[in-house]
Amino acid sequence: MNPISLTRIVELVGGTIESAVLDSGDSEITGINTLAAAGGSELAFLANQKYLNELETTRAAAVLVAQGTEVKSASLLIHVADPYLAFAQVQRLFYPESKASGCRHQSAVISESARLADDVDVGANAVIGDDVVVAAGSRIGPGCIIGDRVTIGSGCLLHAGAIIAHDCMLGNEVYLQSGAVIGSDGFGYAWSGSQHVKIPQVGRVILEDDVEIGANTTIDRGAIEDTVIERGVKLDNQIQIAHNVRIGAMSVMASQVGISGSTEIGRGCQFGGQAGVAGHLQIGDGVRLAAKSGVMSDLEAGGVYAGAPAMPHRLWLKVSALTLKLPELWKSRSR
Amino acid sequence: MNPISLTRIVELVGGTIESAVLDSGDSEITGINTLAAAGGSELAFLANQKYLNELETTRAAAVLVAQGTEVKSASLLIHVADPYLAFAQVQRLFYPESKASGCRHQSAVISESARLADDVDVGANAVIGDDVVVAAGSRIGPGCIIGDRVTIGSGCLLHAGAIIAHDCMLGNEVYLQSGAVIGSDGFGYAWSGSQHVKIPQVGRVILEDDVEIGANTTIDRGAIEDTVIERGVKLDNQIQIAHNVRIGAMSVMASQVGISGSTEIGRGCQFGGQAGVAGHLQIGDGVRLAAKSGVMSDLEAGGVYAGAPAMPHRLWLKVSALTLKLPELWKSRSR
Amino acid sequence: MNPISLTRIVELVGGTIESAVLDSGDSEITGINTLAAAGGSELAFLANQKYLNELETTRAAAVLVAQGTEVKSASLLIHVADPYLAFAQVQRLFYPESKASGCRHQSAVISESARLADDVDVGANAVIGDDVVVAAGSRIGPGCIIGDRVTIGSGCLLHAGAIIAHDCMLGNEVYLQSGAVIGSDGFGYAWSGSQHVKIPQVGRVILEDDVEIGANTTIDRGAIEDTVIERGVKLDNQIQIAHNVRIGAMSVMASQVGISGSTEIGRGCQFGGQAGVAGHLQIGDGVRLAAKSGVMSDLEAGGVYAGAPAMPHRLWLKVSALTLKLPELWKSRSR
Repeated sequence: MNPISLTRIVELVGGTIESAVLDSGDSEITGINTLAAAGGSELAFLANQKYLNELETTRAAAVLVAQGTEVKSASLLIHVADPYLAFAQVQRLFYPESKASGCRHQSAVISESARLADDVDVGANAVIGDDVVVAAGSRIGPGCIIGDRVTIGSGCLLHAGAIIAHDCMLGNEVYLQSGAVIGSDGFGYAWSGSQHVKIPQVGRVILEDDVEIGANTTIDRGAIEDTVIERGVKLDNQIQIAHNVRIGAMSVMASQVGISGSTEIGRGCQFGGQAGVAGHLQIGDGVRLAAKSGVMSDLEAGGVYAGAPAMPHRLWLKVSALTLKLPELWKSRSR
Repeated sequence: MNPISLTRIVELVGGTIESAVLDSGDSEITGINTLAAAGGSELAFLANQKYLNELETTRAAAVLVAQGTEVKSASLLIHVADPYLAFAQVQRLFYPESKASGCRHQSAVISESARLADDVDVGANAVIGDDVVVAAGSRIGPGCIIGDRVTIGSGCLLHAGAIIAHDCMLGNEVYLQSGAVIGSDGFGYAWSGSQHVKIPQVGRVILEDDVEIGANTTIDRGAIEDTVIERGVKLDNQIQIAHNVRIGAMSVMASQVGISGSTEIGRGCQFGGQAGVAGHLQIGDGVRLAAKSGVMSDLEAGGVYAGAPAMPHRLWLKVSALTLKLPELWKSRSR
Repeated sequence: MNPISLTRIVELVGGTIESAVLDSGDSEITGINTLAAAGGSELAFLANQKYLNELETTRAAAVLVAQGTEVKSASLLIHVADPYLAFAQVQRLFYPESKASGCRHQSAVISESARLADDVDVGANAVIGDDVVVAAGSRIGPGCIIGDRVTIGSGCLLHAGAIIAHDCMLGNEVYLQSGAVIGSDGFGYAWSGSQHVKIPQVGRVILEDDVEIGANTTIDRGAIEDTVIERGVKLDNQIQIAHNVRIGAMSVMASQVGISGSTEIGRGCQFGGQAGVAGHLQIGDGVRLAAKSGVMSDLEAGGVYAGAPAMPHRLWLKVSALTLKLPELWKSRSR
């Protein structure tokens, strides 16, 4: 990690600073740290007002703050539209993605019929099946298992131990964290009167461009048609996506969420951890679900919901507060 | 996937159709699809009345429908007792299970003391421990790890990356999805006054015939006696089964359910997603739990429950509706 | 498993028995079993009063019971301060941990720059990255993947298929169950106005001494600083620990718990299954959370909480009881 000049950082984030500062000479920034931990050559950021008081005591050389932030600080304040975004941009400068270099570990098992671009990396003990196609710049970690006929776009990163079952498709810049399972069988049985008859799950999973899938998250292949995760979706760890679900572009879900079969989630949704959505539902664009919500019916676009069964968040706030007053309510009841 | 004649399909599912139809000559069905997506040579099915209106517009050659369904449709209607079961039966005809062929990938590590039937398949980089026994027709996927002294019956299918710890036993026709862990240590400690003393977990996990275990589901080995999953049980993805649990035959659980230690679940139970059951409980046969239920006491056979703590489903419906009226109730309280 | 003399067992657990018993000659104990299943040469224990009635019918040679337990039993009663702890101690005598023997499977891929103590075991198809350090007595199971620059202390046990990402640190006597993922990327993005910009996650995960991590549990690396699991913490299966969380020493969590980013959990806490804690919170020492709790605010040390949103357990008991009376309350309301 090489130092980066303050001037370059200010330019990158489109920040404004007191002009007098740079006149006195540029300085080298050696890294990013929290307000509390930053040393004198490091950059910090204030993205959560909870940490505002740390601005006075931080030793950081400079701090990314929102426009309009006027706090006495020994550090140089760099005013930006969005300090968290600016932090992300600078951190990506300090830690650029590793590039694929065409390194194939000799212990990897790669089918002769697989077609990998020249620079694709394959880690130790990875397994790549028949007729797999992997485009340029992708990196496949150690112990990954890629089933037959899987296609993987360019610039993808599969961390150690990710698994993709046969025939699934990944777009470009798709990231899989360790232990993610893409394309397990959907949970489909018909009752014969004496046993559960397994229904062959013959659809695929399609992960569009810029999708990221968390550690040990599982995404089932479709029963007949495909399970589709649209571009830019980010799924945290230990999420379960059942067969034939579609998740709209740019939606984000925190860990341990579960989405039941054939439900369609809109674009730009945000789901809190441990939320669950029943099957065959339509969730509109931009819906926000609080953690632990349980959704049992269609939800209109743009709404904010909480509780199980899920209700509008405002109502939930009232109901939650009044639930605590049930003892009082009980005492005051008419008899 | 070869085409199958309509006549054969009608016979297989025990369906009834207008007799005039077949007199005009048999037709070849090329596959199964949804009502909305089926092409003119495909079969569709109507198992969920939600999609009834699609019957009028489908282009399917024929549609599996429940007896008594009388809807105007350009498609041939095949009346059956259970369209979903019929769909399963036909789909299994189109997609018969692959057969084991005795293929052992050279990268697999198979202990010399393991005894595998001749036709058992072993995928790339799989590891099979000492004294493992695998019966005829079983297929072990790439990257699977089978601990010492595990026994696996006939016709089993272990998808890529499934793990079975030492001494566990699988019956016949057991399916493990990717990332399933069978036989991890149960969570058992005794507090010494200064630390948690780990209790050796020396029981096994026994999966009886026709059990299927979902992706990344974990089943802990018993502390002393065994954890037992009886025949025909189907567990979805990311379920947690603690040590010494017993799950009765034919029970079905949706994803992310958790069953705590030493609890016994009856036969033919159905649990919705994210439900949880506390330890040392007795759950009767045929109990149905709604998604997200939290069970803290024994439940009698045949009941339907919801909520946390779980209550009879009918009461839960009332309580859930009245919870939304808490603001009204609060306003109208006596003071 | 060799037999152990009753005398040795009584000494080990600091138990008291009727003195007349040993005068009549020592006996050999062949193992531990439950009260119901124990044979005539086995030891049993009574740790849960639910099974008290089995004391009369057990065939066990001897039973570990709490001081003051006076029940008619054909078995010899060994009175101890804590029967469950005594059971753990004796079971560990019957099942001592296997010792590392320096066995490296030839299929394991071990970087030339890795430094492993002589007696470290490495299982089949395990992968050990560059500059990894593993101290004496540690055992690395088959299929484990250890990223570059990871350090592992002495006496650790990594079950099959555990994954540790680059730069993470394990103390001594750390146990990882199968499928555990240590050091996956934290879930951090900044919204650019058109896409989610991934924030490089450059912190580590640190597991201190005597930590045990359950099967398929995931622990994300810190965004900037580290995620820290302090000594003696025990995490069950399928738990999710987000980036920059700190869990205090000796805390214990049951399966499927989720802890959101930057939350700090105190020492000696106990969390029930499927509980969830929001981000950036402070949970005091010794806090106990009931299963399925949902915590949205800081919690003071020593409290017991339940419900979602979490409330004091006593209040939750009242509220839960009164919730069932909502129909009655509704009928009796003033109109």
